[in-house]
Amino acid sequence: MRAMSSMRRADGDLDRVKDRPGGRSSQIREAVKAAVHEELIATGYAELSYRNIARRAGVDASTLYRRWPTRPRLVADLLLGLSDEFVTIPDTGTLEGDLTDLLQQIVQGLADVRTRKVALSLAIAASDGDEEVTEVMRTFWHHRFAAASVILDRAYDRGEIAGSHPCDLIIENLTTAAWFRAIFSQRPIDKTFVEKRVAATLKLLT
Amino acid sequence: MRAMSSMRRADGDLDRVKDRPGGRSSQIREAVKAAVHEELIATGYAELSYRNIARRAGVDASTLYRRWPTRPRLVADLLLGLSDEFVTIPDTGTLEGDLTDLLQQIVQGLADVRTRKVALSLAIAASDGDEEVTEVMRTFWHHRFAAASVILDRAYDRGEIAGSHPCDLIIENLTTAAWFRAIFSQRPIDKTFVEKRVAATLKLLT
Repeated sequence: MRAMSSMRRADGDLDRVKDRPGGRSSQIREAVKAAVHEELIATGYAELSYRNIARRAGVDASTLYRRWPTRPRLVADLLLGLSDEFVTIPDTGTLEGDLTDLLQQIVQGLADVRTRKVALSLAIAASDGDEEVTEVMRTFWHHRFAAASVILDRAYDRGEIAGSHPCDLIIENLTTAAWFRAIFSQRPIDKTFVEKRVAATLKLLT
Repeated sequence: MRAMSSMRRADGDLDRVKDRPGGRSSQIREAVKAAVHEELIATGYAELSYRNIARRAGVDASTLYRRWPTRPRLVADLLLGLSDEFVTIPDTGTLEGDLTDLLQQIVQGLADVRTRKVALSLAIAASDGDEEVTEVMRTFWHHRFAAASVILDRAYDRGEIAGSHPCDLIIENLTTAAWFRAIFSQRPIDKTFVEKRVAATLKLLT
């Protein structure tokens, strides 16, 4: 049995604009994503303005409204795009190597104040009761955790772990303390911290 | 050897206003703490206003400025007060019981949108580069984690665990996934989740 993952197929849950890579439509989408990213960092979700995004992206506001009729859709498209760039799922050949690489990438992402600001601005909107943003965040993390489950699948195929392991709990075990330190407790995140989190996660898997 | 704790004596690091319980000074302090709490939830840290707090608490703005000359001090006093109410360190007689009770209290606290909003408004200020708020948060969590270390000390005294365990890593292992779900991934936090986090933490201790 492979590592359990009830989190597959999260991709596609959101209404993504489909288009040919490199085409005009694709260029607009990239420009809009970059503009949403900048605006989120600059003003936060609550003040996210279609007019400012359109100006920054160099597109008509009407185009923006037609393709992304709500702010949560704008943000969802940004997040799902970022998620593939932000953290690459590693394939180092060992479970320990993969977990270490994954956590190091997350730590590096969290060291960037822009990452923290995007995450916080969406968290604020969710805590303010915005159901659409809440759903966007749930889907985004679903997608991320499902992508990471391949690490456990490969470790199982190599005979490093016996099945079955709930991927979401394992990846939470590895990663959430880094989020907590970066966002809340403001404690340093060093090499030893990463090693200890990896060791704790390996212990959980054996 | 008792459970390692490099986090003692965090209390007192902040400049707390000392006064006789029940006296006029103590009444003012309680009123101001409540007012700061309400204002933080209503407007967030960035818009925290001495005038609004003074009006809400029924005290002169001059009193407020004299006793809490900076906004981080106002917030620090609130947080250190809240920390003693928010989560009581349990003493159930077993390590498993204590860890379960502690996590359940945290889960309950996180279910309250007011808790999440206070935490988020300070996290935003820290990510905006406010060094004083960053220090307040660091000290607050230091204080909380140090308080929780008594759970491990007692488990050691009862012979349930062998020393030494770094309290901060253990408590992070127990609690941070709940924070991540409540604030970021928006996934449900149920009884099974609590049980699995406790089991993972016990496994780390044995």
